Parts: sequence; structure tokens; C-alpha cells
Amino acid sequence: MAPRDPEAKRRQLLEAALAEFAEHGIAGARVDRIAVRAGCSAGLVYTYFGSKDDLFDAVFDHVVVRTVEEFPLDAHDLPEYAGGLFDGQTAHPEVMRLATWHRLESEGRAPVPAITKANEEKVAAVRAAQEEGVVTDRFPAEHLLMLVINTASTWSVQSREITDLADDDHARRRATVVEAVRRLVEP
Amino acid sequence: MAPRDPEAKRRQLLEAALAEFAEHGIAGARVDRIAVRAGCSAGLVYTYFGSKDDLFDAVFDHVVVRTVEEFPLDAHDLPEYAGGLFDGQTAHPEVMRLATWHRLESEGRAPVPAITKANEEKVAAVRAAQEEGVVTDRFPAEHLLMLVINTASTWSVQSREITDLADDDHARRRATVVEAVRRLVEP
Repeated sequence: MAPRDPEAKRRQLLEAALAEFAEHGIAGARVDRIAVRAGCSAGLVYTYFGSKDDLFDAVFDHVVVRTVEEFPLDAHDLPEYAGGLFDGQTAHPEVMRLATWHRLESEGRAPVPAITKANEEKVAAVRAAQEEGVVTDRFPAEHLLMLVINTASTWSVQSREITDLADDDHARRRATVVEAVRRLVEP
Repeated sequence: MAPRDPEAKRRQLLEAALAEFAEHGIAGARVDRIAVRAGCSAGLVYTYFGSKDDLFDAVFDHVVVRTVEEFPLDAHDLPEYAGGLFDGQTAHPEVMRLATWHRLESEGRAPVPAITKANEEKVAAVRAAQEEGVVTDRFPAEHLLMLVINTASTWSVQSREITDLADDDHARRRATVVEAVRRLVEP
């Protein structure tokens, strides 16, 4: 039976798939659980998205690519850029989990062009700020961007045996991210 | 048939399991492939290690826990400590992959006590260096240790859409790690 509102059902399926993939990864995800979460049949999932891998690609494109593309970089205020990234990752831990599963499970794949392009534009902005003397040129622009993004994602990528040593106060963690990036980019 | 040298076979199985788990994770790993890699039957794997999860725990303990415990921290030279960590991770990418699979696939589990303990000792060393005035006290000691370790692992945890933007020259990457940590810990 075709759903009454196909577009709404499609969004509902993407939401359900995001939760399932973030929790279990690509190999571990089960289409029947996604169907249950979305209140439809497994057959409908295949009708809409083809295979499980195609569904993952749709979710990845919908969530990770969009996040990378839409989060604006202000090369004149990289500490606050990092603080904002940290806020976003704290509010939506599923995005970084999805990106990490993708990194582990798609070893050997080609880079995703839309993400590479978004990062290249950010590198260009960092390089311009280096030429203006607003941020240090002690690092190649690509490395400096990576250090900033990596610092913002500290709590998303490190294991709980180290993240759990201090309390989970958001403001204190954010202050550490902002001050660390200030030190990294200082001319 | 029992192997002639059970201890050698056990080590061979751990090696084979490390390669398989690093590539496919816990859910994706297959005991029959591990047996083929080690040149024995799947039955022998179960005889030696019990379940696939038990085998993962043995590998994790053998590789990740040992790495964390054995890598000495010099709180008076954190930039070089980070440089050494980076060298180790570059030489043995399978260790960080294993740690990351574990983080993703064991969500909700208790922290591994041996790793927590090793990190607590490192935090104590960093705190002592803060009290001596050798490194900054601008961050809580736990955060400073985490920033140092996180900076060393930049190329192990970020996606290739950003790590591939610059060349893969080891010395240049290492120089970035060392200088970044110098900036982070400067009093």
C-alpha cells in the first residue's frame, strides 16, 4: 500500500535510518528495524531507497554533507567557529558517529566530492587570513584548518576512558575548545 | 587436532584477529576468516577464546590496553610525547582503528579500568608539571592531557576529505603536531 504522503514517509524513513546507522553502523544496521522505527514495511524501504548501502548514502548525504556544507567558517574568529562546531556536535552526536562509521567502514573508497569541496573553500579562507596576518602562518593552511576542526571534535572522537576523567560541564569544555584554538591560531 | 605449539598458535590467532577486527569491526568480523588467516579451524578459535566477543576483548587487551599502558608520558616535554604518539599511530594504524571500533560498538559499556588507570596517572603527571609552572594551568589537567593526545591523533581520527587536502609527508605532519602541542601547553 503506497503511503498517503510519500515525501513525509521518505523523511520519516531517513530519520529512522539515521538513528539505526548512528547506533549500529552500516554492517550492523538492519533494514527491518529501520522499517519498524518508521512504521512501515521493509519492502517500502527498498522501494524508496534500493539497497541498505544506498540508504546509508542518502542519510550520509542528508546529514553529514549538509552539516559540513552549511556550517559557516569565519577565518577571522576561528576560536568561536570551533566553539560553534563543538556546540553542534554536542547537540547532535549522531552526525559525528555517522561520519566515523563511514570512515571506518568505507576504507579505500574515494573521498566524497561535496565534502572535499567544502573543505577546500575553508582552507582558502584560512589561507587568506594567514596572508592578512590575522592567524599564524606557522602551519600550512590545510593543517591549521584540521587542527581547529580536530580540537572542536575532541569529545566526539576520544574514548570515554579519557573524556570521563573530568566532569561533563558543557561551558567548561567549550571554554577549553575556544582557548585551545586561540593558542593554535595566534599569529 | 591440537596444535604442536599451543602458545605460538594462540599468538598467531591474536595477530589474525587483530587484522580482521581492525578491518571490519566487531559486528563485521568473521571467525571463519580469522581461522583461515591463522591457518586453523574455526573450532580451534572457539576452543582457545570462547566467543567472538571474548576474542575481541583478548585482542583489545593485548593491543590497545598495552599501548596505553606502555607509552611513557614525559610531562616536561609534552610536544615530543605527542610526536612519539603520532609516530606510533602512523606505524600501527590498526591500534587506533581497533580503539575506534570499540568506542562505537561498545556504546553504553563501562570504561576499561586499566585504560582509565593509565590515563589517571598521566593526568597526575600533567598536574604536577602545572604546579611546577612548566606547562600552562589555563586548562584543567584532564583537558590538557586530552588536547595533547587528541592533537597527536589528528590524522587517525579525521576523515580523508580533510586529511587528504595536504600531502602525506610524515615529517611535515609531525612538525605540525609538535608545534601545535607546544602552543597548547606553553605556560
